[in-house]
Amino acid sequence: MPELRKDPVVDRWVIIASDRARRPQDYAVDREPPRTGVCPFCPGQEAKTPPELLAHRPADGPAARPNAPGWTLRVFPNKFPALKVEGSIDREGDGPYDRMNGIGAHEVIVETPDHTRGLAQLTTLELEQVLAAYRERILDLKRDTRFRYVMLFRNYGRAAGASVEHPHSQLVALPIVPTAVARELDGARAYFDYKERCVFCDIVQKERRDKTRIIYDNGDHVVLAPYAPRFPFETWVLPRAHRPALERVDRAELRGLADALRTALAKIERGLDDPPYNVTLHTTPFSLGDAEHYHFHFEIMPSLSTPAGFEWGSGFHINPTPPEEAARFLREVAV
Amino acid sequence: MPELRKDPVVDRWVIIASDRARRPQDYAVDREPPRTGVCPFCPGQEAKTPPELLAHRPADGPAARPNAPGWTLRVFPNKFPALKVEGSIDREGDGPYDRMNGIGAHEVIVETPDHTRGLAQLTTLELEQVLAAYRERILDLKRDTRFRYVMLFRNYGRAAGASVEHPHSQLVALPIVPTAVARELDGARAYFDYKERCVFCDIVQKERRDKTRIIYDNGDHVVLAPYAPRFPFETWVLPRAHRPALERVDRAELRGLADALRTALAKIERGLDDPPYNVTLHTTPFSLGDAEHYHFHFEIMPSLSTPAGFEWGSGFHINPTPPEEAARFLREVAV
Repeated sequence: MPELRKDPVVDRWVIIASDRARRPQDYAVDREPPRTGVCPFCPGQEAKTPPELLAHRPADGPAARPNAPGWTLRVFPNKFPALKVEGSIDREGDGPYDRMNGIGAHEVIVETPDHTRGLAQLTTLELEQVLAAYRERILDLKRDTRFRYVMLFRNYGRAAGASVEHPHSQLVALPIVPTAVARELDGARAYFDYKERCVFCDIVQKERRDKTRIIYDNGDHVVLAPYAPRFPFETWVLPRAHRPALERVDRAELRGLADALRTALAKIERGLDDPPYNVTLHTTPFSLGDAEHYHFHFEIMPSLSTPAGFEWGSGFHINPTPPEEAARFLREVAV
Repeated sequence: MPELRKDPVVDRWVIIASDRARRPQDYAVDREPPRTGVCPFCPGQEAKTPPELLAHRPADGPAARPNAPGWTLRVFPNKFPALKVEGSIDREGDGPYDRMNGIGAHEVIVETPDHTRGLAQLTTLELEQVLAAYRERILDLKRDTRFRYVMLFRNYGRAAGASVEHPHSQLVALPIVPTAVARELDGARAYFDYKERCVFCDIVQKERRDKTRIIYDNGDHVVLAPYAPRFPFETWVLPRAHRPALERVDRAELRGLADALRTALAKIERGLDDPPYNVTLHTTPFSLGDAEHYHFHFEIMPSLSTPAGFEWGSGFHINPTPPEEAARFLREVAV
């Protein structure tokens, strides 16, 4: 059974995924290039994954059957989950330490049947379908009262942690709010208490006025280089209007969001020579409902440089590319 | 001039090192294997580095001259510093944003003249000299009232961010306390306020009693796998007695610390097949003096797996190796 453990000094939870306990020699595999073989996420290989939770399929014909080929998008539980979905949550202490059993959902969202097409190569309509699937899964998991947060992320490229090449995102529903999200909420709350405005709304407004860090703007959604980026070419995608959570956005707005996200990814892919990258959704925890102080957004982090001891040890990043230069460069990449 | 920028939402400072502003094409270099050539940190190449700040040299003879060969340890300013040492600190706001000019010191500590010997191959006495040099540089930088913290770290291996192969550590003196350190101090303070004990003292005591996560114990210093490690085989080295800051430890104690650190690194190197790793010193900020709630220690993080979007986005790590197994394994590695 995996376990969630809390550091006794900082408010940081770690998943100890002991079910896939790895001995030192297992890590050597990570230094090797990936093995080739049959892709378990490709059409026709549905039996290689757990049964699907959601799929976009035609209304009838053989492709309408669950777990048959013919889908355009498919969601299923991760075969090697970091957390287990069955059971109730038990917390316990041990001297200065705290732990709970590793309850949570870990799902895979295969975004397209085409093994070779990345998120940036999807049409805006296809990406809208992906966002709609994110929303549907979050809404479903929200009904499970054990969960407090859904972390949605996408690792693209081996150097960014992707172990399967086929385009996919992942989602982890957690019984706690992760540290970085809690910090963001605290910071946004403090700003709101002081100014009575959402900090993200203020950022969007200021950036649209200054224009130096704007990469793309379709009116309702903004792609920008943040003021204090941790990584070179770090890129955020935000709705212009105040929207606390992705799952509460309507379908018409999802289209504009899909356009902005697609443009951001295509510019990064084309401009930076198809780098590995990570995307994470930052959204309001379930318990907060319609937060007036928090504003969902995507953060895209290209893996261009190696984070070193300095970064890990201090939470303090050295970024050699000013965001104004990154934005100017990406703004000019035609897509 | 480099700049320090603060994220408007979370309390995170970032160095925008614009003096070495890098265009997208520069990053391609990072994907290539390192170029070979003359090592600028080797004896005889002293003119390739800025003039030394400290060196361990014989008392007389030609090797006694600064910046000549014959040293056993040498410290000099980083030729490509992330921060500049000259100037006064100016802070300014811009709407929701805060910045200050990038004042700080960035130094390189070459630990041995031998290009091929790692920290783990040094004798305990040699490593004690390295720790003494750390201490001397910290004490010197402490006299500069612009600085609040010295971050000391070591990147070993290219995958851990080392750009020069020759064994060396780095030190960055900062006009702010880095985020991760501030969080640790806050957490340790809260624990102390509640229990009137140092949390690190409690951890050392509990671990010495439980023994399941102890890797090595020489009586005065403990090497252990922390309870909630972010990374597989993450290893901490702590003094048993309450010691707020490295620079206040006396020479006799440095020897025991050198023995513990050397043993930890040698076990990691031998047991895990010479992996890349990062070491960071966590110590009390200058302004806190003899903190009763904080306890200096080294954290060693082997780079065995690739941190993915999940980790970066959430501050929430998945670790497939329970620390009890990591400790059992490393305990048994003979060094």
